[in-house]
Amino acid sequence: MDKFRFYLPTEVFAGRGCVRAHADAWVLGRRALIVTSQHGAKLSGALDDVMSILNDRAIESVLFDGVSANPDAEQVYAGVAAAEGCDFVVALGGGSPLDAAKAIAWAAGAKVPREDFFRRSPAPGEAVLPVVAVPLTCGTGSEVTPYAIITNHEAQTKVNVSGPNLFPRVALLDAHYLESLPKAVMCDTALDALSHAIEGAYSPRATQLTLAMSEEAIRTLLPELLRLAHGEFVNLPQLHYAAMLAGMVIAQTGTGLVHAMGYPLTYHKGIPHGRANGILLAGYLEFMERPCGPLTRRLLDAAGLHGPEELQALVDALLDVTGAEREAPTEDELARFAREPLRLSVVRRYRAMPSPEEVVDIYRTGF
Amino acid sequence: MDKFRFYLPTEVFAGRGCVRAHADAWVLGRRALIVTSQHGAKLSGALDDVMSILNDRAIESVLFDGVSANPDAEQVYAGVAAAEGCDFVVALGGGSPLDAAKAIAWAAGAKVPREDFFRRSPAPGEAVLPVVAVPLTCGTGSEVTPYAIITNHEAQTKVNVSGPNLFPRVALLDAHYLESLPKAVMCDTALDALSHAIEGAYSPRATQLTLAMSEEAIRTLLPELLRLAHGEFVNLPQLHYAAMLAGMVIAQTGTGLVHAMGYPLTYHKGIPHGRANGILLAGYLEFMERPCGPLTRRLLDAAGLHGPEELQALVDALLDVTGAEREAPTEDELARFAREPLRLSVVRRYRAMPSPEEVVDIYRTGF
Repeated sequence: MDKFRFYLPTEVFAGRGCVRAHADAWVLGRRALIVTSQHGAKLSGALDDVMSILNDRAIESVLFDGVSANPDAEQVYAGVAAAEGCDFVVALGGGSPLDAAKAIAWAAGAKVPREDFFRRSPAPGEAVLPVVAVPLTCGTGSEVTPYAIITNHEAQTKVNVSGPNLFPRVALLDAHYLESLPKAVMCDTALDALSHAIEGAYSPRATQLTLAMSEEAIRTLLPELLRLAHGEFVNLPQLHYAAMLAGMVIAQTGTGLVHAMGYPLTYHKGIPHGRANGILLAGYLEFMERPCGPLTRRLLDAAGLHGPEELQALVDALLDVTGAEREAPTEDELARFAREPLRLSVVRRYRAMPSPEEVVDIYRTGF
Repeated sequence: MDKFRFYLPTEVFAGRGCVRAHADAWVLGRRALIVTSQHGAKLSGALDDVMSILNDRAIESVLFDGVSANPDAEQVYAGVAAAEGCDFVVALGGGSPLDAAKAIAWAAGAKVPREDFFRRSPAPGEAVLPVVAVPLTCGTGSEVTPYAIITNHEAQTKVNVSGPNLFPRVALLDAHYLESLPKAVMCDTALDALSHAIEGAYSPRATQLTLAMSEEAIRTLLPELLRLAHGEFVNLPQLHYAAMLAGMVIAQTGTGLVHAMGYPLTYHKGIPHGRANGILLAGYLEFMERPCGPLTRRLLDAAGLHGPEELQALVDALLDVTGAEREAPTEDELARFAREPLRLSVVRRYRAMPSPEEVVDIYRTGF
């Protein structure tokens, strides 16, 4: 491995009670903006834990719980308005609240005008409010990435707002909070994590180190996904750990075709992000088997699977067991969706560039 | 993996020419203290590269090249005197210059009085001059750790000065600089890296993630050590990468018995640090095989070795090929050395605590 870069400045604490145990590490200011969605943070008990610690320390806080799935710039700027006078941000939730919080931290910290939000990227050295991330799902990895995925309605897709100063300062993983997670969300987000590990492995920016991390994430995820599919008891700390690890991978490599193909499914068909990726994964592996045989074999070995068809069967079983919907797009829609990913430069730089027909094939494999 | 912590804030750039290519990332102030030893940085060309970039940018610099092997507090404070007016530190060399530079960065930045140096640790939040580390050997890992190992003559051993703010800000790995490294130094430092990967794996602070990193480091190091032993062409970027990776492991886990046993060999017998560790490794694995069989098997598998005796044979071959000396301590010395490691709390916390007789046995296996 000659040329590479590795950067991962987030301080991670994991374990039951870590939010309280490591309060000295994450109470980063005098007035906190708490960013979350309507339900998850309350149900899980995470919001109570954070509020109680802030109260004990007489730290003021403002609660902004207006983040929905696939947050857009309007939500980000509602958060910026709420952030007035705050000097740090505590993000609680899945990818949507975490990503929104990071975008708010930049837009508020660097005073980015609304009209510039999608036009420029967070510049190194720009003031960004420090972010503490408490992931309440097992998929996003956003707690250890420099990315915030925000929906741009004008472009009818999601935009990756990213910069090295968007890494959260601290990530707190208490798997206990996952106990209140609906099965379908657990499954969808775990598939998102699997997708991160696999896409990251094929990235042109993958290195020996990120590949070892991808394998470890896949090796950790698969037994838990099988347990989920069989309705068995799941090891939540393992799921939480693997999702974070897969996040560490994409923090270095970025994502690729699966995410690019998943975005239209989410935007136009309302299929949750992780589920959309999960549906596409087996077809993607099948496509990558030809140009990248040995690497695909390594990933399947780490998963303990003989071939992509076994992964498809697992995903099917997971969606059945959780009663998750996946409305198949029409042929017209597929033809339209297939054009979008190929426009993205991130996909064009990948090891193998599919034709529009091949993209449609990958979509078809999943549905 | 339930409870764990992971922190690795150093930004790593690797590849030929990375010092010049990433100058924007590492020129961190207006006046640099350059910390190095008498020869390595000049021979390798690294010092010229750094000076030329600083000159191009009209950044002032002070050269402190007074670091010897196993630096002591006197050298650190000579560096502190030279650091007057400097706002960042560039460290070039093996573990000694890198560790000295980190200690200087703390002592100068936090204005630590000489008499307090061994009495307290760098406190979180304490001002430390930012450090840029350019490793010119393939062993220390100091470029990605929060440790500075400084000799304390009063205690007749080495002291680990450590704190989270001692992580270098940037690490620059150009394997091209290793070309001028004497074979014996390359071999000694690579054995140090192997020791980091193995000791880290047995640490009570090892996690699934650090274990995967240990395995990857061992898997990468062994073929290169075999090539070194056979006098074949060595893949320098791989050695550099593996040494850094093993450093990332001990940044999380710390070192253990081998390092603790190696220090007296270095202090009293003048055996270079890495070589001392290498000599002890096979005996250590043999000792750990009983209490930690499956883990030892995993490490040996990653190394592609059948048993500890194969590692001993490899180390013997390496020392023969490089003409490296290893004067065996007398039985009296061994009995005396064996008492020191067992006093250290870091060793007492380990998974298996050897008796003084067992420590002597490990020493004997190596000589």
